[in-house]
Amino acid sequence: MAALSESAIIKIIMDSHHQLLPAGSLGCGDDAAFVPLAGGGLVTSTDMLVEGEDFSLDWASGYDIGHKSLAVNISDLAAMGSRPAGYLLSLALPAAPDLSFVKSLADGMAAVAAQYNCPLYGGDLSATSGPLTINIVVFGERQNPLLCRGGAAVGDDILVAGQLGGAAAGLHILQHCPQLRARYPQLVQSQLRPAPLLEAGLAVAGSGLATSMMDISDGVASDLPRLLSAGLGAVIEEAALPLVPGVAEFAAANDINPVSLALRGGEDYGLLFTAPPDNFVKLQDLFSTLSCPVSKIGRVTSAPECYLITAAGKTEPLAPGFDHFG
Amino acid sequence: MAALSESAIIKIIMDSHHQLLPAGSLGCGDDAAFVPLAGGGLVTSTDMLVEGEDFSLDWASGYDIGHKSLAVNISDLAAMGSRPAGYLLSLALPAAPDLSFVKSLADGMAAVAAQYNCPLYGGDLSATSGPLTINIVVFGERQNPLLCRGGAAVGDDILVAGQLGGAAAGLHILQHCPQLRARYPQLVQSQLRPAPLLEAGLAVAGSGLATSMMDISDGVASDLPRLLSAGLGAVIEEAALPLVPGVAEFAAANDINPVSLALRGGEDYGLLFTAPPDNFVKLQDLFSTLSCPVSKIGRVTSAPECYLITAAGKTEPLAPGFDHFG
Repeated sequence: MAALSESAIIKIIMDSHHQLLPAGSLGCGDDAAFVPLAGGGLVTSTDMLVEGEDFSLDWASGYDIGHKSLAVNISDLAAMGSRPAGYLLSLALPAAPDLSFVKSLADGMAAVAAQYNCPLYGGDLSATSGPLTINIVVFGERQNPLLCRGGAAVGDDILVAGQLGGAAAGLHILQHCPQLRARYPQLVQSQLRPAPLLEAGLAVAGSGLATSMMDISDGVASDLPRLLSAGLGAVIEEAALPLVPGVAEFAAANDINPVSLALRGGEDYGLLFTAPPDNFVKLQDLFSTLSCPVSKIGRVTSAPECYLITAAGKTEPLAPGFDHFG
Repeated sequence: MAALSESAIIKIIMDSHHQLLPAGSLGCGDDAAFVPLAGGGLVTSTDMLVEGEDFSLDWASGYDIGHKSLAVNISDLAAMGSRPAGYLLSLALPAAPDLSFVKSLADGMAAVAAQYNCPLYGGDLSATSGPLTINIVVFGERQNPLLCRGGAAVGDDILVAGQLGGAAAGLHILQHCPQLRARYPQLVQSQLRPAPLLEAGLAVAGSGLATSMMDISDGVASDLPRLLSAGLGAVIEEAALPLVPGVAEFAAANDINPVSLALRGGEDYGLLFTAPPDNFVKLQDLFSTLSCPVSKIGRVTSAPECYLITAAGKTEPLAPGFDHFG
């Protein structure tokens, strides 16, 4: 009985399925899958959230959990440049669920569903002897050429839509210093109710200016190597990282490294994408029409590793990320 | 803190979502949803299986669990007359999962995926402090006019494709008399590795001969009232129920009512459908080309309840079914 890493488990499962996917499809390894169907096709993604792993009832309300469950799925479609068309919900509820909790959970999902025009089509309900477990699958139509991982070339800019570090700072507050909740509402909000950058994702994919894109779920340090095809690397500049307002102040006051929050905390659900340097001005113009900041944080290199240039000018390797089974 | 029924929980969730589904779509309340997309549309269904609720590691292998998880989802598409195009898998695994167990689970899914040409497109993986939890979502293209619930008229025949009682008998053996496993392999197989009736579902939906269809997941006694629109009822004849070979012998030897196994045990994953009596001969002809039995078990009535005519000629109400939170 050996402990298995997350990637080893995924490899076992995918390797057991010898079937070839049909031509034009996109399977495991991107933010969403693409299933070719007659007359078009389906962009789809699924995420499972487990109490104690992905959230805690100690600090998240039913509404928060409902909001986040659907929001993180819509973020995956945004990262593929696909607009949501609907979702299915599976719930495993502990015995004797509380009416007001279920109502609050459903209301949080319904608010996100209404905001992003992503209606609920149905689902499945089960009891469980364990923690509350929520699975959502979202469907979208392909709106644009699919903007996948692996498309970046050496010399491309590395860009971030949105801001970083807020969700990790918010998690720290919720877990370790809840008395600071009222002082840093935006950080707590970043953790509890992330806002997927759907319009930004659609705009980037539709512009034809970018070469690859993904959403930032585990942090740039973990996600960037997944965005790049094998053999490529990157250099990221600490000074260029766009921090959520309040992250720097919170980090300084609590003796926490803000760069670690921004690069390794994850759950910010911004978009990480690449584009040839010649396209940067056009991308800035594009984002000036969106209520979403865009930042150039580094460039793609031919070295097969990712590095960080610190504010002091030192070059360090980007540390590895989070593993559910690590 | 009041105990909530499964249907009450579903109602809370659906009521919280005020969004109207787009024209031509089909939402909650059938075996699968239909999401209109440009050039066609998507038939999709999701099922969550939880250790201790839906299976037990005491009597099911990883391979069995993998097989069943995907098979019951494909059965939902079969009930809509839709051929699978692919699936997504979400897994919540207890900490330190065992390599051979994960491999066996994946192999069981892969065998069904290959048999039904339903490739794995990806999914999500999480840890859990609770029981093994598996969520699958399957996608299909609409092959035929959707054959939904609620289409039956007074006087229609009620028909079953496949046979009944095997899964419940198999469950009884696995839970209470495992020494009988070798004696009744078909019953145990019915429980552990159900075979969705995809070709039968496609044939019935494509024939235009039926008025409604669903798969039998909770047993005819629970499922039949869900097939009929409000205000309609049914009369079922005990003598006409198609039992899986071995159910009658097993039930007699163990002092169990075989009718209860057939009507209330569930998990047989046959198809329950209705058709005007004039179409019965044509349906028999159709099924003679399939390796699947078809049986007329009763008729739709205008009384708003469902009744059983026993082998002794007595008329009894059909007893209610299983509730995860009952």
